Amino acid sequence: MVNDAVAYAESQRERFLAELKELLSIPSVSTLPENKADSERAAQWLADHFAAIGLDNARVNPTEGQPIVTADWLKAGPDKPTVLIYGHYDVQPVDPIELWDSDPFKPEVRDGYLYGRGTSDDKGQMFIHAKALESLMRSTGRLPVNVKLIIEGEEEMGGPHLDGFIIEHQAGLKADVAVISDSHMLRPDQPCITYGLRGMTYLQIELTGPSRDLHSGQYGGAIYNPIQALCEMLASLKDHDGHITIPGFYDRVRPIDEAERKVLAASPFSEEDFKLEAGVPSLWGEKGYTTLEQITARPTLEINGIWGGFTAEGSKTVLPAKAYAKISCRLVADQDHHAIADLLEAHIRKIAPPQVSVNFKRLHGGQGALIDRNSPYMRTAAKALEQVFGNPPVFTRDGGSIPVVATFQTVLGIDTLLLGFGLSDDNLHSPNERFFLPNFYNGIQAMIRFLSEVGK
Amino acid sequence: MVNDAVAYAESQRERFLAELKELLSIPSVSTLPENKADSERAAQWLADHFAAIGLDNARVNPTEGQPIVTADWLKAGPDKPTVLIYGHYDVQPVDPIELWDSDPFKPEVRDGYLYGRGTSDDKGQMFIHAKALESLMRSTGRLPVNVKLIIEGEEEMGGPHLDGFIIEHQAGLKADVAVISDSHMLRPDQPCITYGLRGMTYLQIELTGPSRDLHSGQYGGAIYNPIQALCEMLASLKDHDGHITIPGFYDRVRPIDEAERKVLAASPFSEEDFKLEAGVPSLWGEKGYTTLEQITARPTLEINGIWGGFTAEGSKTVLPAKAYAKISCRLVADQDHHAIADLLEAHIRKIAPPQVSVNFKRLHGGQGALIDRNSPYMRTAAKALEQVFGNPPVFTRDGGSIPVVATFQTVLGIDTLLLGFGLSDDNLHSPNERFFLPNFYNGIQAMIRFLSEVGK
Repeated sequence: MVNDAVAYAESQRERFLAELKELLSIPSVSTLPENKADSERAAQWLADHFAAIGLDNARVNPTEGQPIVTADWLKAGPDKPTVLIYGHYDVQPVDPIELWDSDPFKPEVRDGYLYGRGTSDDKGQMFIHAKALESLMRSTGRLPVNVKLIIEGEEEMGGPHLDGFIIEHQAGLKADVAVISDSHMLRPDQPCITYGLRGMTYLQIELTGPSRDLHSGQYGGAIYNPIQALCEMLASLKDHDGHITIPGFYDRVRPIDEAERKVLAASPFSEEDFKLEAGVPSLWGEKGYTTLEQITARPTLEINGIWGGFTAEGSKTVLPAKAYAKISCRLVADQDHHAIADLLEAHIRKIAPPQVSVNFKRLHGGQGALIDRNSPYMRTAAKALEQVFGNPPVFTRDGGSIPVVATFQTVLGIDTLLLGFGLSDDNLHSPNERFFLPNFYNGIQAMIRFLSEVGK
Repeated sequence: MVNDAVAYAESQRERFLAELKELLSIPSVSTLPENKADSERAAQWLADHFAAIGLDNARVNPTEGQPIVTADWLKAGPDKPTVLIYGHYDVQPVDPIELWDSDPFKPEVRDGYLYGRGTSDDKGQMFIHAKALESLMRSTGRLPVNVKLIIEGEEEMGGPHLDGFIIEHQAGLKADVAVISDSHMLRPDQPCITYGLRGMTYLQIELTGPSRDLHSGQYGGAIYNPIQALCEMLASLKDHDGHITIPGFYDRVRPIDEAERKVLAASPFSEEDFKLEAGVPSLWGEKGYTTLEQITARPTLEINGIWGGFTAEGSKTVLPAKAYAKISCRLVADQDHHAIADLLEAHIRKIAPPQVSVNFKRLHGGQGALIDRNSPYMRTAAKALEQVFGNPPVFTRDGGSIPVVATFQTVLGIDTLLLGFGLSDDNLHSPNERFFLPNFYNGIQAMIRFLSEVGK
């Protein structure tokens, strides 16, 4: 049964790729209002596709934002486990567009990589599951386990409607384990299972100084420039050792114990490669932690954007009324994103000079998660990955945020297997996003093996 | 002769205003390439107008940028002084356009003010001279003095081609005194002669951290974010007392002596009004100096713009490759703008962390100037202003920059009378720029009186 499904998948490579390209060509950027219709188009495309490969109840569920696509196949019988597969069909904006070597929405293969927005994050990885299910279904007429799919369209904007949907449909989404492929491997031959994810809180700060833009020659020197205030405030949020200075910020951070430090240190993470991929002369982070710990097991604060005053070409001698920044913190267990946003706002209000006023917009938040590294599902997944990629997976934490993992834990009471098939140089959220094509095909095979083993 | 000219000016108020509105409706924004044709249109309009009011040699002189308009009338005879009148026909950009209550290029009168871009800075003030000359010419058939006009179109971008033009045409521009109306009075009944102007250096800073935009979840925590570096560097350029921390910055600053402190303290400057006009809860500036000293007689450093990372709506979890700022210093005698730009660049390079690289663009520079408060021309101007406005003028320094004053001093060897007819709440460089109309008419009368007296 496994072999038939794998053989089917091998024989259909070209068609699978063509179908993925079709999905990738829909610019379903969730954060841009002008792409709303595209999101709906992508959702409908997926629902149609799920029905076409033999799944039941394929449906586009409207939300107040982008729709959520669901489907299932529950004919394996009540004695078989139910696997819940999550993915997302929305993608990041493509700016700066001029740095792309090819059209982000006209996917093309170059040197074994598929280039385009969403190739790795997450359309390409999500599509692995569709193709594994199709291969099993077409070659054997059935699936070895019960399956439920939930594919959202707002992951890149923090999934504002996903939690509500899961709570509302909690009975229908009942499952034994969840699987998500939205993370990455360490090398093409080194699979990786992520057991920790960071949470996040993302704020926009608006500072107001004078009530209108002023002439810097007439007023400069006697007014607290809000850009200056913003710079001073943001600069003060970290000390020289890279520690975040917000009182209480670290209070609930679960320390990294010695056992875990060893697991992380054993991961074949290369600082040199990381530096090369980032294109920086040297690294800089929180003192007392390795780079891998800094980017996965420690909370961070990054300024994601800043703007104010005159930013066009040339020189305007303005002393602006407003200055803005977008900042986000990656959080680790057991930091609560609401509590951290509260701390952050309170601290920023406190350090603001009396000459400026502060306003906040909370743009999104999600909880982090830590998953049991030793569950039976985890062991089965590890075996499937080893069979396909030739090496047993490394267990690691990921620096990114997949808030639904925490939701699955708290609402459905299930753990999630984070089986990532991306690579760390996939240029997620950047120009020239890509997906290493052998991982697409190997991922399909690994999922065929995993589902078959779980259904035994 | 004076009375005839004044009577003529009074009788022509409506036409004068209509003509000014016509000039104001040409969007001659010098810093925006898309308005290039408008600048040329404004220049041609002015040259035609100068010819129409009886001046000779009215000419649009092309430069590599926006043209310079010149005209003269030299028939008063060699025993009469020659007055050189400077102004500028270019205007600032209008952003943020949504804060304007009326179209910036459809000037309209509301409550005694003429609203529109350029009404005060400087089309309206410059036009005072054209109308004073017309009134003298039409009522008496001649002018009491020889006159030369030079009206540029690049003042708002630092006049990159003006100095070269003045040097090249230095023989033709020979004069005894220059007059510029591009500053402001203290109140509608309180004229003001500016004897000090600040210089300026304006730089753009470009910081590069990673070689591309990174995902803040994958890289955040181990990379020196260039926005953070920029904030830290900019925040460090002033200390808690508002002193600029760049080594050597104050070395050549001419101290304010006791006599001058008294002149400035005697000026009816109202801190309360200043605060209200700026719309701030409290003021903030360099310790040890009064507000008026801070904004006129002391050098400053202001951040005019900042940008980097994701600045659109929503949340993108990016750790950006680049961060930018525009900063400018207002300079006082005897600071040299080239030397200060050098100091600034060297200091910023020095404080940049090794993980980022720095690039600069020098966007413009101009020297400051101090003018003899006790020259005969100064006394004649003071008398003319007192006759029209009812109060003797206050002598003050202006915080803004009119670099041509230094050029007139060094190239032509003449002092400049800065006879400003704006008001401090004219919203220069801001939305709803306006010009107090009685000052337009009184300014014409004052110039008729001044030129007549000088020609006696």
